[in-house]
Amino acid sequence: MKALVYHGPGQKAWEDVPDATIGEPTDVVVKVETTTICGTDLHILQGDVPAVTDGRILGHEAVGTITQVGDAVRGFAVGDRVLVPAITKCGRCEYCGKGMPSHCQTVGGIGWIFGHLIDGTQAEFVRVPYADTSLYAVPENVTDEQAIFLADSLPTGYEVGVLAGNVRPGDTVAVVGAGAVGLSAILTTGLWGASRVIAVDSNKFRLSRALEFGATDVVEAGDQQVDEVLAMTDGLGVDVAIEAVGYPETLLTSAKLVRPGGTIANIGVHGAPVTLPMDTMWIQNVTMTMGLVDTVSIPTLLKMVGSGRIPAEKMGTHSFTFDQMDDAYDVFKNAAANEALKVVIRPA
Amino acid sequence: MKALVYHGPGQKAWEDVPDATIGEPTDVVVKVETTTICGTDLHILQGDVPAVTDGRILGHEAVGTITQVGDAVRGFAVGDRVLVPAITKCGRCEYCGKGMPSHCQTVGGIGWIFGHLIDGTQAEFVRVPYADTSLYAVPENVTDEQAIFLADSLPTGYEVGVLAGNVRPGDTVAVVGAGAVGLSAILTTGLWGASRVIAVDSNKFRLSRALEFGATDVVEAGDQQVDEVLAMTDGLGVDVAIEAVGYPETLLTSAKLVRPGGTIANIGVHGAPVTLPMDTMWIQNVTMTMGLVDTVSIPTLLKMVGSGRIPAEKMGTHSFTFDQMDDAYDVFKNAAANEALKVVIRPA
Repeated sequence: MKALVYHGPGQKAWEDVPDATIGEPTDVVVKVETTTICGTDLHILQGDVPAVTDGRILGHEAVGTITQVGDAVRGFAVGDRVLVPAITKCGRCEYCGKGMPSHCQTVGGIGWIFGHLIDGTQAEFVRVPYADTSLYAVPENVTDEQAIFLADSLPTGYEVGVLAGNVRPGDTVAVVGAGAVGLSAILTTGLWGASRVIAVDSNKFRLSRALEFGATDVVEAGDQQVDEVLAMTDGLGVDVAIEAVGYPETLLTSAKLVRPGGTIANIGVHGAPVTLPMDTMWIQNVTMTMGLVDTVSIPTLLKMVGSGRIPAEKMGTHSFTFDQMDDAYDVFKNAAANEALKVVIRPA
Repeated sequence: MKALVYHGPGQKAWEDVPDATIGEPTDVVVKVETTTICGTDLHILQGDVPAVTDGRILGHEAVGTITQVGDAVRGFAVGDRVLVPAITKCGRCEYCGKGMPSHCQTVGGIGWIFGHLIDGTQAEFVRVPYADTSLYAVPENVTDEQAIFLADSLPTGYEVGVLAGNVRPGDTVAVVGAGAVGLSAILTTGLWGASRVIAVDSNKFRLSRALEFGATDVVEAGDQQVDEVLAMTDGLGVDVAIEAVGYPETLLTSAKLVRPGGTIANIGVHGAPVTLPMDTMWIQNVTMTMGLVDTVSIPTLLKMVGSGRIPAEKMGTHSFTFDQMDDAYDVFKNAAANEALKVVIRPA
């Protein structure tokens, strides 16, 4: 089979590799019919994730059809159309038991293993461990081009942004960063009855999409951004500030935008420490959350997509075939300039 | 009347001042029969709180008897024994309405005004604004020497530590810093069914008190502290880490002690920014809380003290009279060395 293989920082190739096969009786093999690229894949290619070593197949998002099933698998059969989510879960450790497979102890303490600790989904086939507890059947009323974004980006915006941020009816929410994950938070914030959703970004294309995806207001990032948001919110700030970038400046901006008693929900994957002004923040009664997605909201999101309430397909702006993998990465790497949100990659 | 007056950094005097009087119809005047000193008073004397200006009477904790009542006061009468809490609340702004008078908008956005924006409680008499919504009647089964610690330190440990930290039955809790507020968290953590409470401090006296107040384990602060706590908690850390000091090091220690999915409840009043390792923390699914006390738990705590479940009187280790105010400050300033927790100060 062919797959996208990592060969050290800056090096990758769509090349021949051994076929994916059943290793454990709890495995299945999935023929990948749709995959995509995540910002984390770009981090890996920059050499930022040392656990990913030469020879690893990249990717942790897929929709496809099961072609082989291990002897212990009971919930899935050959021919089933499934969503392979970013998180693998054993279903029996303490963390899985409390709905937090982001820290599944059985798979190593971090539930993200595809394209990280085991071979990933940017391939013709992928081996999926703990299939019964990890995979999701895709309902007939959800297309591949919708389901693919439920593998990571949509649940990340929803779980790590909207749910962790504890958005409640009537709340005003700011989303700092309107890339794919920030827009996923915007798409799902309305479900919890936010009265106002303010998107903050420096890119006009993203801000226009933010309005289309449910933002009520947009603010161009820059020197005036905090004053503009405070002016919209009685000078006190928003109830929930969702950080969806991962830089110190955007987290500090989120801290400035939140009102006393509010929540800062950090979604961003940070690459550096952040100096927080605890000397002024301690008295603000704010809560700050952060974390890796659990993907346990996928059943909810599948229903919302199926019923038309979440137009997930709008996240896919560019389509490629497997043999155009390099082009797909190039477009996604400069997503804002290319007016790209997420790419859709399929067999030729 | 006499009162302890602030005269700029390092300067204070127990001196004659004009009598406290009714200013607004919602005021009462309370004859102070018990007061105490808070770490915040020490910060003020160091010049760390610029809003406190020359001539301000210090203190924000008192128990006493009402001697004058404004025309609009309906819930209290002359002769009532009352607790004057650190927080003043109008009872009608949005923040008071949601139980968060720490940010009462009517009194200026921060509910702590005694000994800060208006004259305080380290005095023979104190004017109490918004008396109906701010004061608490002291039940007969609670002594002055118990009630005084419900004005600030006990509710701070309970609300900003235990409640914000979301302690749940079975949880393992670490309390970093076993001074008066840390010990207040330890005294009240058991109410929520913690299975294990680990006190971390460098002072042996405080650690011995921690065990007496409900800690199940103590760890001496130092190079081994994190390893020792991790060894007690399957290597993953505690469910809730309560920071009760207010230094960067102790907050960073708390961050190291908490397990994935846990909560860091910062109680400490920080005087400097803190550089948080967001590059490793973002993936830990931790929540960090912080804030000023609301004092809305006082009715709960009065019942717990009255029924004997919280031995609040044990927080008072040293007693003084008003004319020994300087001695009281000297002992409290070096509390750990003096084996002091809180001081009790009363009329001669």
